[in-house]
Amino acid sequence: MKKNIKVNAAILIIGNEILSGRTQDTNTSTIALWLNSIGVKVEEVRVIPDIEKVIIDTVNELRKVNNYVFTTGGIGPTHDDITAKSISKAFDIDYEIHKEAFKILEAYYKPGEFNEGRQKMVWMPKDAKLILNPTSGAPGFNVKNVFCLPGVPSILKSMLGGLKNEIVGGEPILSQTISLRTVESEIADSLTNVQNKNKDVEIGSYPFFQAGKLGVSIVLRSENQSKIDVCNSQILDFINKKKIEIVDR
Amino acid sequence: MKKNIKVNAAILIIGNEILSGRTQDTNTSTIALWLNSIGVKVEEVRVIPDIEKVIIDTVNELRKVNNYVFTTGGIGPTHDDITAKSISKAFDIDYEIHKEAFKILEAYYKPGEFNEGRQKMVWMPKDAKLILNPTSGAPGFNVKNVFCLPGVPSILKSMLGGLKNEIVGGEPILSQTISLRTVESEIADSLTNVQNKNKDVEIGSYPFFQAGKLGVSIVLRSENQSKIDVCNSQILDFINKKKIEIVDR
Repeated sequence: MKKNIKVNAAILIIGNEILSGRTQDTNTSTIALWLNSIGVKVEEVRVIPDIEKVIIDTVNELRKVNNYVFTTGGIGPTHDDITAKSISKAFDIDYEIHKEAFKILEAYYKPGEFNEGRQKMVWMPKDAKLILNPTSGAPGFNVKNVFCLPGVPSILKSMLGGLKNEIVGGEPILSQTISLRTVESEIADSLTNVQNKNKDVEIGSYPFFQAGKLGVSIVLRSENQSKIDVCNSQILDFINKKKIEIVDR
Repeated sequence: MKKNIKVNAAILIIGNEILSGRTQDTNTSTIALWLNSIGVKVEEVRVIPDIEKVIIDTVNELRKVNNYVFTTGGIGPTHDDITAKSISKAFDIDYEIHKEAFKILEAYYKPGEFNEGRQKMVWMPKDAKLILNPTSGAPGFNVKNVFCLPGVPSILKSMLGGLKNEIVGGEPILSQTISLRTVESEIADSLTNVQNKNKDVEIGSYPFFQAGKLGVSIVLRSENQSKIDVCNSQILDFINKKKIEIVDR
């Protein structure tokens, strides 16, 4: 039984391209949804630049207050890929050629193609555990509670499945969404009452525009389905009284 | 002349819906691109939950080390909208009805529609400067170097223009992108050489997949166009030697 164990995580997005606005981060959502499904709650996300000292300080801060830290970005072959070196320094571990990673990439590339640029990708913290990459060969790595993944979304996605056995979550966080044809201010008071009566359920209220029409999604989150159900019925109750339409979304 | 003044900012995304992965944040990119254009560099982004203590602590940490802090989310009418109250506490300023905001919303809504739920949106830190909202009436607000904006992307976007005179930036950060039909490891060494010769230009390398083909975008960023030009010609030089194709992107 894993009941009532709270397991938390932080996501650390490393990359100037996100901070400049040039690239839209999508990895946060991918990792967070996957973590939720295995009972890990993301409590914080940070986006930081490709600067060694910032990476070291942030990793060291986050790994102490979270069960898990997931980094994305900076593990490729170019000069701005400094995550592996920074993580080595954060843990004060030697930064060296990882033999297992070397073998994987040597076998992955055609003879003669495993050049110096590509060999940079096998430099890692000594004895790091590899995170296998079914898409493009070059593995990520794991040191203690820190898991380092690439920034390219499709590659990152393909690597999460292989991590499942490494992460010990609590109860999966369940959620239920009720979408309404209304505006937030019409339901704010009633929703506050429901929240006050159901302290254990996280109730979120999110306005949306869809096909030119306004609406509000109410999201109920808890590890406990029956608590969600109680909350849900109290909400349906005031929705019916107010004659608010429920919509698909 | 504003030359050589470095102006930095942090973005603070407040909202459980981003941490759960349910909602994909797009406000970071919107704000960052706009700030870049007026010479403000985003150095950090954080995503935090709707928890008062976390909001207070994070705002107080970020506002001390950044010229500007932009928050998004949590200024609507529902129980989970606690940004205004938290900012009041962070600055130790009274949280009260803002008369100007009250007048704006009283005029915005039809008679009788400015109900208690909506009135919550005019509770703000005392004497906060309003950030006008041309889309949906309810204003954001500004206390010292902290600017609080809504979470709904279309509304946030419509409010940025009105902020331009409030933000004093340095030189705009210029950028140039060269997209290539290659993979990172083919250009890693040459690119490192260019970076070493041009320390003042931030050179980023970003792999992409487009129409089923691999490519790499090299992004050059600096406040100084002539430094970008020097860098650019050195890159074109090795691209020509390596016979790498430049692609539109």
